[in-house]
Amino acid sequence: MKIIVYNKALRPQHKNLISETAVKVGAEVCFIDSEDSIPEDFEDAEVFYGTGLKTIGKSRHIKWFCAPSAGVDFLLKPGVFANEDCIITNSAGAYGVSIAEHIIMVSLMMMRQMHVFFRKSILGEWGRPLPQKSLKDCRITVLGTGDIGSSFAKRAKAFEPKSIVGVCRSGKCSESSFDKIFRIDELDEVLRDTELLVMCLPGTAETEGVLSKERMALLPKGAYVVNVGRGSAIDESALIENLENEKLAGAALDVFANEPLPEVSPLWNTKNLIITPHVAGNLTLDHTLDKNVEMFCENMVNYAEGRPLKHVIDKARGY
Amino acid sequence: MKIIVYNKALRPQHKNLISETAVKVGAEVCFIDSEDSIPEDFEDAEVFYGTGLKTIGKSRHIKWFCAPSAGVDFLLKPGVFANEDCIITNSAGAYGVSIAEHIIMVSLMMMRQMHVFFRKSILGEWGRPLPQKSLKDCRITVLGTGDIGSSFAKRAKAFEPKSIVGVCRSGKCSESSFDKIFRIDELDEVLRDTELLVMCLPGTAETEGVLSKERMALLPKGAYVVNVGRGSAIDESALIENLENEKLAGAALDVFANEPLPEVSPLWNTKNLIITPHVAGNLTLDHTLDKNVEMFCENMVNYAEGRPLKHVIDKARGY
Repeated sequence: MKIIVYNKALRPQHKNLISETAVKVGAEVCFIDSEDSIPEDFEDAEVFYGTGLKTIGKSRHIKWFCAPSAGVDFLLKPGVFANEDCIITNSAGAYGVSIAEHIIMVSLMMMRQMHVFFRKSILGEWGRPLPQKSLKDCRITVLGTGDIGSSFAKRAKAFEPKSIVGVCRSGKCSESSFDKIFRIDELDEVLRDTELLVMCLPGTAETEGVLSKERMALLPKGAYVVNVGRGSAIDESALIENLENEKLAGAALDVFANEPLPEVSPLWNTKNLIITPHVAGNLTLDHTLDKNVEMFCENMVNYAEGRPLKHVIDKARGY
Repeated sequence: MKIIVYNKALRPQHKNLISETAVKVGAEVCFIDSEDSIPEDFEDAEVFYGTGLKTIGKSRHIKWFCAPSAGVDFLLKPGVFANEDCIITNSAGAYGVSIAEHIIMVSLMMMRQMHVFFRKSILGEWGRPLPQKSLKDCRITVLGTGDIGSSFAKRAKAFEPKSIVGVCRSGKCSESSFDKIFRIDELDEVLRDTELLVMCLPGTAETEGVLSKERMALLPKGAYVVNVGRGSAIDESALIENLENEKLAGAALDVFANEPLPEVSPLWNTKNLIITPHVAGNLTLDHTLDKNVEMFCENMVNYAEGRPLKHVIDKARGY
């Protein structure tokens, strides 16, 4: 078995772990620095871990593609892989800690009007106390109850919210921090009781536009929205309107329909909107990177021993 | 018993609760809108709840002064009260939730370099991923283990830090979220193992300059400092130096030696410093205000029935 690894975030200890695991299972590993530098004797490699599709996608030899990201919507478009039977796994499970911390941070920033204080501090101006809200006694809804939603719920629970409910396709989730889990077809009812809506959904045909203009209208006045899943899940025009007319008290977006967010986007200047450039989860946090490599190595053993892989993408479902 | 209340943050329900409690204990209450508008028949009032010293401090009749704040250093200076035997109570216990949320928020902002992303977003610029740290596996030290420090520890625990230890005068604290409690004379040793230092100390002679230049040097490179207690606890010049030379990775100050922070202060432009204008805890959060009034009413009953008051300030100790 030959493995190509192309992941610029890896540090020496990660490369060592991958190499040692490969030795154990009798595989050969090649770490490359660019997609164009695959050595001739690795052109028939069957396993790939990393980012890069230009060359790898074209290879008919690739049987298992392991993405270091959680979202894989960009891998599921037709024609991406020459070998259509290629197994795709993602690294869901590595990002929960980082993204949960991001959600807590931006939720508190909105509720405590930190964006206002921050702007003042840049100008060297002392501000006055402003009205604030709290996670305590807040009614929180988490749309998407996977690793990210569950990691957030665990942390949010310590802030003593009034309720924290999850909404997902199956209506089932084992994370005990949720007070209740609803099915996605019950979303409309749930939104009416939601003061903080946290969206951590994969980008699929089903999740596109899930927070439509109509659904936004169901949220109570003064609600907050956080999106860390995919930008396609929100009607951005409706969001701008609802922030400008103060139906929503705030929103925090880490993901957008178009990334990077174009310079001309009206979102940049929308009232009470906190924008981050898709950094809620990335491989700059030690924990995320360590976990990512660990998960790949575990799956490498599974693959070598002919056992089922973990984190396999259901191509029809999209995640 | 006559009671004067001067607290502009109160809403009708709070005034009702105070009035109803007063009726129960046979007291008369007067709500005033300015310190100069005390009616003649309340000039001999013995109880005061609120802010304002110009007139109230001069009154020889005042026997119990209830401050809606947690810190009371400004009430303990000589000559503030004409009646030196006046009992002073504070409202410690009302601010834990709000200030704990502030500490979590700014800690995450520093660790995730949110101040950098925020500045970019104001300019309409998309940023790139930056190195980040996490509360997970972080070694946290909380200086001051009262309501605020304990409320923070409870929340921080959910983020799975490597350790969270408290440091206080007595070396004792009942909050079980702390892994260990140290005495203040053990502080030097504790600082060497501290990646995030959270300071929530009252302003007393003992706490002045507790984070001195020498103690700052004990912190490991890349440590973070949060101060929500009193500005006098930190050597601000040494802090600036340690932020500029990147010995410290970040700091978040809500309190300062001089407030409002003067326009000319070099703190405004110090690298990796998040400044908020003493708003970590204030009466703009429903929970804080409700709790504040509840605590005053409980003490009103204690006072009327001749029982010991809660939250009485030890004037020698300073809190």
